[in-house]
Amino acid sequence: MRFSPVCVPFVALLASTYAYNYKTMWFETKVDHFGYANNDTFKMRVLYNDDHFDVQRPGPIFFYTGNEGNIEMFANNTGLMWDWAAEFKALLIFAEHRFYGKSMPYGAKSYSSVKYFGYLTVEQALADYADFLLSVKRTWPGAAGSKIAAFGGSYGGMLSAWMRMKYPWLIDAALAASAPILQFQGVTPCGVYNQIVTKAFKAEGDQCVDNIRKSWIALEKKGREGEKGADFLRKNFRICQPVLPTNYTAVRNWLYDTYGNLAMTNYPYAVDFLKKVPGHPVRVSCSYLQEKFSSDEELLFRIYKAINEFHNFSGDIQCNDLKNSGGSNLGDEGWRIQSCNEMVMPMCATGTSDMFYEYMWNFTDVRTKCEKKYLMTPESYKAQWMFGGADISSASNIIFSNGDIDPWSGGGVLESPNPSIPTVVIAGGAHHYDLRPAHPYDTAECSIARLELFGGMAFRLYRQRLLGDREESKDPLPP
Amino acid sequence: MRFSPVCVPFVALLASTYAYNYKTMWFETKVDHFGYANNDTFKMRVLYNDDHFDVQRPGPIFFYTGNEGNIEMFANNTGLMWDWAAEFKALLIFAEHRFYGKSMPYGAKSYSSVKYFGYLTVEQALADYADFLLSVKRTWPGAAGSKIAAFGGSYGGMLSAWMRMKYPWLIDAALAASAPILQFQGVTPCGVYNQIVTKAFKAEGDQCVDNIRKSWIALEKKGREGEKGADFLRKNFRICQPVLPTNYTAVRNWLYDTYGNLAMTNYPYAVDFLKKVPGHPVRVSCSYLQEKFSSDEELLFRIYKAINEFHNFSGDIQCNDLKNSGGSNLGDEGWRIQSCNEMVMPMCATGTSDMFYEYMWNFTDVRTKCEKKYLMTPESYKAQWMFGGADISSASNIIFSNGDIDPWSGGGVLESPNPSIPTVVIAGGAHHYDLRPAHPYDTAECSIARLELFGGMAFRLYRQRLLGDREESKDPLPP
Repeated sequence: MRFSPVCVPFVALLASTYAYNYKTMWFETKVDHFGYANNDTFKMRVLYNDDHFDVQRPGPIFFYTGNEGNIEMFANNTGLMWDWAAEFKALLIFAEHRFYGKSMPYGAKSYSSVKYFGYLTVEQALADYADFLLSVKRTWPGAAGSKIAAFGGSYGGMLSAWMRMKYPWLIDAALAASAPILQFQGVTPCGVYNQIVTKAFKAEGDQCVDNIRKSWIALEKKGREGEKGADFLRKNFRICQPVLPTNYTAVRNWLYDTYGNLAMTNYPYAVDFLKKVPGHPVRVSCSYLQEKFSSDEELLFRIYKAINEFHNFSGDIQCNDLKNSGGSNLGDEGWRIQSCNEMVMPMCATGTSDMFYEYMWNFTDVRTKCEKKYLMTPESYKAQWMFGGADISSASNIIFSNGDIDPWSGGGVLESPNPSIPTVVIAGGAHHYDLRPAHPYDTAECSIARLELFGGMAFRLYRQRLLGDREESKDPLPP
Repeated sequence: MRFSPVCVPFVALLASTYAYNYKTMWFETKVDHFGYANNDTFKMRVLYNDDHFDVQRPGPIFFYTGNEGNIEMFANNTGLMWDWAAEFKALLIFAEHRFYGKSMPYGAKSYSSVKYFGYLTVEQALADYADFLLSVKRTWPGAAGSKIAAFGGSYGGMLSAWMRMKYPWLIDAALAASAPILQFQGVTPCGVYNQIVTKAFKAEGDQCVDNIRKSWIALEKKGREGEKGADFLRKNFRICQPVLPTNYTAVRNWLYDTYGNLAMTNYPYAVDFLKKVPGHPVRVSCSYLQEKFSSDEELLFRIYKAINEFHNFSGDIQCNDLKNSGGSNLGDEGWRIQSCNEMVMPMCATGTSDMFYEYMWNFTDVRTKCEKKYLMTPESYKAQWMFGGADISSASNIIFSNGDIDPWSGGGVLESPNPSIPTVVIAGGAHHYDLRPAHPYDTAECSIARLELFGGMAFRLYRQRLLGDREESKDPLPP
């Protein structure tokens, strides 16, 4: 779910900026929806736009289930909802996830103790949204009978799907874009993510993948060279922090994250999501790695060039911060916490079936770390009993879309479990590409997928779609 | 959901006692399933019987979703599960609801502070059951592929239905007997319960209802007569507590509860549920009220005789405790707490459309009382956004059964919202009559309804029903 964009100078089309016109409201809700020992409340930030919502002939509500970051970023990067609003006459709403952006239940101290951040869980966030939506239905002029479609990408897409599964009386349909709801222990093999990252790079030539694979050995050698090697790594990669022989693996992990981010944001045109990102960023990165290098130093310098396109296209970054591989809009600390309670997503690599170095996933290690750092014991089977794991056959009205070069698609729903859960796979598509606004450089695959999605969503909301059919009906939605 | 049985000497068939053969286990689970600020755990009591469960050819799991009381009582009074076990080759499991019976998360201090009993909520109880059931699937020999059918009556029936709605990957089908999931604000009119109680008594003659209706005026007069009248009430009804002119309404409320309990337990044969109860208890009670009485005193004495059949058939009660209208197996304090957080069920009477005295339901009063007594603010719309209110059309594989003289049927699902949610209405049936074991005195309506339920449940579990079909399939269950 980490996003980090990259941009290169030779991409002619500069990153588009979308300044959508939304208003802000605040919704007061409970910190704990499932118990009464803690009766604290907090204010959740909600952005909305009602330009197309006609109180006399109300359309549906398009509800973005905010994920792990500032909701403004998601509102500005989910152009699909804005593109479709006029035709559906939809009320657009973007809700900010608790403990992210400005929706801090305990203000500045929210992350200071588990007695506060202990309430950062999926179920609580879903309940915030449900509480809010019932309130919208009860009080928003014209909205009482409006059907509600949830939209979300990545973790936000998981939330959209789970909202439909847990609160189907509020959510009539969901578009879960790039939602890896299967990325859990015992459901999806831990190596799939890295295999897909590798596939995205391999599409730009075997040489690129070979160089990346070799670089880990070069990196390890430098790490073993003592202070001299560590200093080389710091200078070569322009790292802000000191690099010591004992922590050279931090550089390695940061590089590893970067390749994943490059694959996720591998769109065909420039975007301004977290940072400015060029079109085809994997291709741009691989352009530095299309030859054999005679020395480790040369190889590692080219690796720096390749990943620097991601970390510092803007040119205003003085050094690379190993602790910030995404942008400031993502709540990294919040996601680390969620990874230590319910969102335990196993990841591993072999170095042969992928372009990385071998690393194993070990739940005991995860638990030890989480208990030490956050006083939280992660629950590796929680998502399975709480949200069904691979068994979602009894759900309905969820569209799962995935791009086939998106690393998260490995944990996504690619095969329809029943006719009312259609799946859409976008060939060559990156992470929730379909949620972006229509663009002149869009691939045909994505444009077609969006039309399919549109048809599916319109069908699900047929009573209140663009035709303005106001007839009320107790009929169940079509399958 | 209060049950209180009654028994009369002239009923020849003595109350049956069912001594079913179950073993006890304890399952450790978290006090808070939705947050990590509190990492306490507790042990939930679980009763089970595996006499018919063949590890080589395993049948389904029949899972009783324990309600507000000692689980042994429910295990001993849900004969339907025991009756069906052999044919289904089912594993029988009865889980005890947190904060009832012996499943006290904080032992003897569980009810001492909201910091403990604040965790007594529906969602937490459902999560206990889900956590337990995943564990059963993962560890119980032979159970990995077993389908699970939830059974429950009254509040337990609500939990069965909600388990299927919230955890359909664990619960394949549910039999929700006399489950008033619609008994909430804005969904069901508050007077329906009392209208059905009245209907049950009216079936025994208008004179009975007339006398009960007149008795409230007689009672009020006595209440106004000062100490003399209050003393009459205490003696007439053999009340343990002092009765003062200022609290004579406590006697009234206790009488009111009793009529509801009589209607709920209006079975055609004697049972031993909370106390010993005769067959047709409403008829027995009304037998004292079939004439006109010349004085208030005579009327109230006959009222005493009528309700005494309920409170003291055993003859070993020295006086009537106004605070204990049910039996010792029900967790009255627990239910009062749940009524003060999520289970806010409006009740009212007019005195004309029913046989009671006029009383209004006022949420402000409820809130004031709950905040004062428990430091809890009840949420009158919680059940609506959490469980859908009347909109359960997207659910499936739930059988809702109701007796048409059961007062709780007013808040039950009597009309099928879709083909996979069949409803069964038992003419003349009392509160979850169908869950009881087959009995020679059973009404034809109940016997037929059980056959229907059996067929429906077998159909829903057809892969693992009595025929022993072990074929595994990913097909969705038939609608």
